[in-house]
Amino acid sequence: MGILQGKKGIIFGALNDMSIAWKTAQAAVREGAEIVLTNTALALRLGTINDLARECNAPVIVADATSVADLEKLVDGAMEHFGGKFDFVLHSVGMSPNIRKNIPYEELNYDFLGKTLDISAISFHKLLKVLYAKDALNPGGSVVALTYIAGDRAVAGYSDMSDAKALLQSITRTFGNIYARHNGVRVNTVSQSPTKTSAGQGIAGMDKMFDYADRMSPLGNADAQDCADYITTLFSDYTRKVTMQNLYHDGGFSSMVCTPEVL
Amino acid sequence: MGILQGKKGIIFGALNDMSIAWKTAQAAVREGAEIVLTNTALALRLGTINDLARECNAPVIVADATSVADLEKLVDGAMEHFGGKFDFVLHSVGMSPNIRKNIPYEELNYDFLGKTLDISAISFHKLLKVLYAKDALNPGGSVVALTYIAGDRAVAGYSDMSDAKALLQSITRTFGNIYARHNGVRVNTVSQSPTKTSAGQGIAGMDKMFDYADRMSPLGNADAQDCADYITTLFSDYTRKVTMQNLYHDGGFSSMVCTPEVL
Amino acid sequence: MGILQGKKGIIFGALNDMSIAWKTAQAAVREGAEIVLTNTALALRLGTINDLARECNAPVIVADATSVADLEKLVDGAMEHFGGKFDFVLHSVGMSPNIRKNIPYEELNYDFLGKTLDISAISFHKLLKVLYAKDALNPGGSVVALTYIAGDRAVAGYSDMSDAKALLQSITRTFGNIYARHNGVRVNTVSQSPTKTSAGQGIAGMDKMFDYADRMSPLGNADAQDCADYITTLFSDYTRKVTMQNLYHDGGFSSMVCTPEVL
Amino acid sequence: MGILQGKKGIIFGALNDMSIAWKTAQAAVREGAEIVLTNTALALRLGTINDLARECNAPVIVADATSVADLEKLVDGAMEHFGGKFDFVLHSVGMSPNIRKNIPYEELNYDFLGKTLDISAISFHKLLKVLYAKDALNPGGSVVALTYIAGDRAVAGYSDMSDAKALLQSITRTFGNIYARHNGVRVNTVSQSPTKTSAGQGIAGMDKMFDYADRMSPLGNADAQDCADYITTLFSDYTRKVTMQNLYHDGGFSSMVCTPEVL
Repeated sequence: MGILQGKKGIIFGALNDMSIAWKTAQAAVREGAEIVLTNTALALRLGTINDLARECNAPVIVADATSVADLEKLVDGAMEHFGGKFDFVLHSVGMSPNIRKNIPYEELNYDFLGKTLDISAISFHKLLKVLYAKDALNPGGSVVALTYIAGDRAVAGYSDMSDAKALLQSITRTFGNIYARHNGVRVNTVSQSPTKTSAGQGIAGMDKMFDYADRMSPLGNADAQDCADYITTLFSDYTRKVTMQNLYHDGGFSSMVCTPEVL
Repeated sequence: MGILQGKKGIIFGALNDMSIAWKTAQAAVREGAEIVLTNTALALRLGTINDLARECNAPVIVADATSVADLEKLVDGAMEHFGGKFDFVLHSVGMSPNIRKNIPYEELNYDFLGKTLDISAISFHKLLKVLYAKDALNPGGSVVALTYIAGDRAVAGYSDMSDAKALLQSITRTFGNIYARHNGVRVNTVSQSPTKTSAGQGIAGMDKMFDYADRMSPLGNADAQDCADYITTLFSDYTRKVTMQNLYHDGGFSSMVCTPEVL
Repeated sequence: MGILQGKKGIIFGALNDMSIAWKTAQAAVREGAEIVLTNTALALRLGTINDLARECNAPVIVADATSVADLEKLVDGAMEHFGGKFDFVLHSVGMSPNIRKNIPYEELNYDFLGKTLDISAISFHKLLKVLYAKDALNPGGSVVALTYIAGDRAVAGYSDMSDAKALLQSITRTFGNIYARHNGVRVNTVSQSPTKTSAGQGIAGMDKMFDYADRMSPLGNADAQDCADYITTLFSDYTRKVTMQNLYHDGGFSSMVCTPEVL
Repeated sequence: MGILQGKKGIIFGALNDMSIAWKTAQAAVREGAEIVLTNTALALRLGTINDLARECNAPVIVADATSVADLEKLVDGAMEHFGGKFDFVLHSVGMSPNIRKNIPYEELNYDFLGKTLDISAISFHKLLKVLYAKDALNPGGSVVALTYIAGDRAVAGYSDMSDAKALLQSITRTFGNIYARHNGVRVNTVSQSPTKTSAGQGIAGMDKMFDYADRMSPLGNADAQDCADYITTLFSDYTRKVTMQNLYHDGGFSSMVCTPEVL
């Protein structure tokens, strides 16, 4: 008997067993949920999502989160699989071509910036728009997106992903207001510690940032498993009045200025 | 099998069945916890805590939260009752003599202000100091205090309770840093919607404020039962990396500026 | 002798004498600055900027703020006019085709969203990129962009302009870090009260929102002239250590939850 | 002709020529203001305020900021000196006996905590109460108190001064709402970089914290002179719609998470 007994949902972004999304899929199933997995065709080839799908007894529906048509097929497919509406979605999607190509922030390529924003933030609006238009979520449902403190304060090296996260957090609030009034669906972001995932590896200086955050955080960095466990509470009925929040899950980092462990 | 199976903790501030603390006591027991109840001698006489004690199979230990000696007896008594360390504490304590006597904020009586701060905020430091000195909490334990958005922004009529809540939230951060580094104990505040409790009744214009918040909040106001359910997640192992946070549990109110429902 | 004696700068976005940019141009000149005015070709036709140009003895250089080429010509033109580097820039640029066409937020057109973000936020990155690449600003220079509280919390009806403002504020922080380390240039946003400008007229329910904010704000709404005066302090040497901030200029609105004047 | 021409005000807390208050007194006079200086009898003996008084042609009125009677005499004395109402006040008052005696935060002495709060925060309420009761400030007047980021996030070693600053910032908002509605008086805090003043010397690890903040801040730490210049803008008519704000004057520190200069 887990806290998601009888709940159904979609998990975006599981690449391999380092992914927060991977751990969240496992945690959701452990807590009694049924899930549908989704990722891009490329991620399906590069990663090992089929192992997770077997373990979780979950279908994998390929979708590019920037394509409204793909998202429509995904939501239709999920509703068909579940036999109706469902309860939760995890958005764990982000990528910056500017970072990949080591373009400094002061020289951003604007086509790439458009892609960063589309993949990492606007895809969340598209997802919510499709869910809303199809009225796919049960009353009191819950949608969570992953973010990072760079959306609130400057992290050198996080470049235009900072801007994408700020945009993502704003979409959370603006759509959250609308969806809550429609049928009580909650929309929140989880602002997670730096995490050793495949996505995290792409950020320059990630290792040093990881260690710095770990020393600064009174509880140490939260890892992917911690994050997955936390996210299940947001999908559950224990948090039905929490919405439009950016929830720090970071071992206390965001509330610290300075500590001897860093000095 | 609940999310607090095997956990033990102390609940402050249950007066009657409208209290958030009362609902939290019930929710904690529902989730598998054992609890100790505490309140002042006066509250014991005015309220109906013995009914709750019977229902929860919990001892009641009288304590004035402003008295370090009382808190020491309480923590000793709880450790004796539990047979050792315990896991969580809810601090739900607050009172302003200035508000009770309708003294406007611009004319505060400073003896009364001292009492407001001592009862509503410094009592939290005293509690943490006693818990810490006695090493009464298991690693990864969790302490939660109740607060209100008036600690962050101005609410006319909330007077020096605003200041007490700001102080409470600061103590949460400052002590939270220390306790987390000691043995992973988390310290957080929950910033709750205006709630129809006996304590809430004392605030001038509370009814209008309640209705205003309810219309402004996309999910409507969170009630005492919602809050209790939420608090159990903070006591549980699902949130072991969340600390030093002020967590809005308010139906989205804190992220709203304005909505046609209010205009 | 004003506080901008000897300073030189560019003012974007003056349309007519209701514009914050218009008042800022006048205020900057009143304080001793020399300025260059800029706006789009369309705005030049629709508005009365030439009156302002005469009054301020300022050239008008047409530029589309979304065009890097136009921005380069503008900055080159300003440097030629000033005989070298300059000191300040006001970015007052924003527009949402989704709002203009009354498309609800839950149904956003994504081409239009791309335009909203490009015009209202990415244009600020483009501006900073061009200024930085040409090293056009003197050490300790100051760049200000106008924003609104909808970038931080939800305002029903402000739609994707909320998201654009959040993005703008993030660009301010991320680029601000880089520019400050380069040569002490400051980058800040001013989060202004709802203001009766031509731009403001386009927002649905603007009048009600204006009145609501005016009653909620302890000082009443800040108007365009107030804002202009405030911006001159940010261009001046009195604020040389203020950067990466979102500065509320709103009569106290942002720090209010509730007041009898609204209830 | 300065920006405070014709303004009159009181400056608390000038001890010696390292004090922010000292620099603010000089800056205010430089900008055309007339001032009254005040400090405790002890500070008058320990410091060199009479040198400043001569330089500024200002009377010194001794006052203990925790004594309402002293504050009344001070305000009466200032009104007599100025021949009526005045325009601004700087509150630069703070001290923690717990820090002086190296008592760790988890072992705070509560009598000392009471003193810390009274001296560093409640004194600000007392000051505002006296100003308000005597209607001593002209319409649109301005009151500023100095604070530090420890009021918002945890700084190890800043101990109960963190809590005092949080309380101070709350008083700013709560009283600010009332005073603005009365006659447009603004109340704000300036959250200043760590500063090498006599007061700052008392904080354990201050030197390391100073260097850390200096490297983290894109503009470097703001010094006492920078702060003084900034404060004059808040006393001036350029900022008549800014109230209830906590204004970071810190070289960008508060908006930074991390930078290679620190890693």
